[in-house]
Amino acid sequence: MSGVLVVGSIGYDTIETAAGRRDDVLGGSAVYFALAARLFSEVAIVGVVGEDFRNGDVELLRNAGVDTTCLTTVPGGKTFRWHGRYHDDMNDRDTVQVDLNVLGCFDPELPESHRDFPYVFLANGSTAMQLKVLEQVRPASPKVYFDTMNLWIETEREGVMKLVRHTDGVVLNDSEARMLTGIPNTVAAGRYLVEQGAGDVVVKKGEHGCIALWGDRISVIPAYPLAEVVDPTGAGDSFAGALMAVLASGGELHEALMAGTIAASFTCESFGPEKLVDLTIGDIRTRLNELAAMMSE
Amino acid sequence: MSGVLVVGSIGYDTIETAAGRRDDVLGGSAVYFALAARLFSEVAIVGVVGEDFRNGDVELLRNAGVDTTCLTTVPGGKTFRWHGRYHDDMNDRDTVQVDLNVLGCFDPELPESHRDFPYVFLANGSTAMQLKVLEQVRPASPKVYFDTMNLWIETEREGVMKLVRHTDGVVLNDSEARMLTGIPNTVAAGRYLVEQGAGDVVVKKGEHGCIALWGDRISVIPAYPLAEVVDPTGAGDSFAGALMAVLASGGELHEALMAGTIAASFTCESFGPEKLVDLTIGDIRTRLNELAAMMSE
Repeated sequence: MSGVLVVGSIGYDTIETAAGRRDDVLGGSAVYFALAARLFSEVAIVGVVGEDFRNGDVELLRNAGVDTTCLTTVPGGKTFRWHGRYHDDMNDRDTVQVDLNVLGCFDPELPESHRDFPYVFLANGSTAMQLKVLEQVRPASPKVYFDTMNLWIETEREGVMKLVRHTDGVVLNDSEARMLTGIPNTVAAGRYLVEQGAGDVVVKKGEHGCIALWGDRISVIPAYPLAEVVDPTGAGDSFAGALMAVLASGGELHEALMAGTIAASFTCESFGPEKLVDLTIGDIRTRLNELAAMMSE
Repeated sequence: MSGVLVVGSIGYDTIETAAGRRDDVLGGSAVYFALAARLFSEVAIVGVVGEDFRNGDVELLRNAGVDTTCLTTVPGGKTFRWHGRYHDDMNDRDTVQVDLNVLGCFDPELPESHRDFPYVFLANGSTAMQLKVLEQVRPASPKVYFDTMNLWIETEREGVMKLVRHTDGVVLNDSEARMLTGIPNTVAAGRYLVEQGAGDVVVKKGEHGCIALWGDRISVIPAYPLAEVVDPTGAGDSFAGALMAVLASGGELHEALMAGTIAASFTCESFGPEKLVDLTIGDIRTRLNELAAMMSE
């Protein structure tokens, strides 16, 4: 096996932003992750959907080159649904409704064939589930990273800190880093996580880019400046997907962070994963060069 | 004449942050600007103080190499005072008290000797005053930039837009750019100002760095990551000081933005301008190299 395995949500989103509204758009952390990752390495998705999951969406993932062998359909089940409404500045959003449906009992049992990916990403999900997957992949997967969210930090803080200690990296946003550590300064919060054994700490700052901390070092990357954000849903997951896939293909962390920020910028330019689906490595390279110029000229 | 002339406030600040409290610290936009600018070019300060202004503070500015010829003392007057309290995350602050004192009637009349600086910075102050100074320096000063704040955007919007059209650049923070243009996206707000004839638009984003827009181009620079911020007062003004002084000494905009972000980072590491006063160009260069490495490794 080569490439990266992602375990996360797959669902249908209803999204309202200043640019409009879309209903039942293909979404979920694993989907955004995989659609960005496939540009840089092989990627396999582990997730669960209901019987209402559209065949066309499985096709879409397969045609994009995503390994969907571990996509499970629960008989009689309904796919995870999320409905969110963004504020005008696109930085905050309210969850209008969330129906876990089949995701509520998501308890992935990886087949032997998928336990030895060199890179594994535990996308945002219940901490107990993430820890269970970690046990399954650990013997053969040297690099496991994870993401989390405010809900798990509030309800399963001990479990989240166990993931910090037992994985090789964490990708989380700045408010989550502050919440998890109780430290209001983002850099200090990141350093604390490194000291707790987190390995690589990647802090996403949305429109402000990202900071990565590892050992006693720091990388800082601004976001690609966008004059119009249509829908930021999935930007963080596609950031993580490109990041992990570049690492999985042998790239350096700086290169991985740059690729992540560029993938996220494309995600923001359309509703759902629309733009991500059509994206080519050439599009990524063009924008990577633009961003590098903006950072040095 | 060579170098940069700054017109702005000089005062005593009482500052409360998570790191402690200091009373009657030397402050004001022109002071922070000049103490950063003097590292890169000649700088002259235009401002007004009361009889209570400490001789030692005039000495401090002179010893730092700042031209204080146009520092006016109003007989019987009292120096401008500001008292601010920062929130724990250091990104927001409340003004506890402000006493304009002599700054309330600040109406600078520049002597002939100070009307032909190639670079002029109209630091935050009343829009009417800024427009008056602009008239005095315009014939001989090819590059005039200005700063503003929410108060003037709310009360003198027309005057601020006149400055946008008639100066060569504006340095303002992201919330001000959004407020001035009514555009929630920072990049789009900056572009709009360029289209309105602003020349170089430099948008400061505090701990997130800055974006500069000019013509159809954009530069993005992350901030130097600080694990501890003692007091952010004057960070934006010292950013502008280093920026303008590098431009005045013939530097490129990218170099100027990098110097600005580094000067601002030092300002944040002590109360008031303490650290800025002792700063050398060597300190700046060391940190510039560190930031460049963090952006590329």
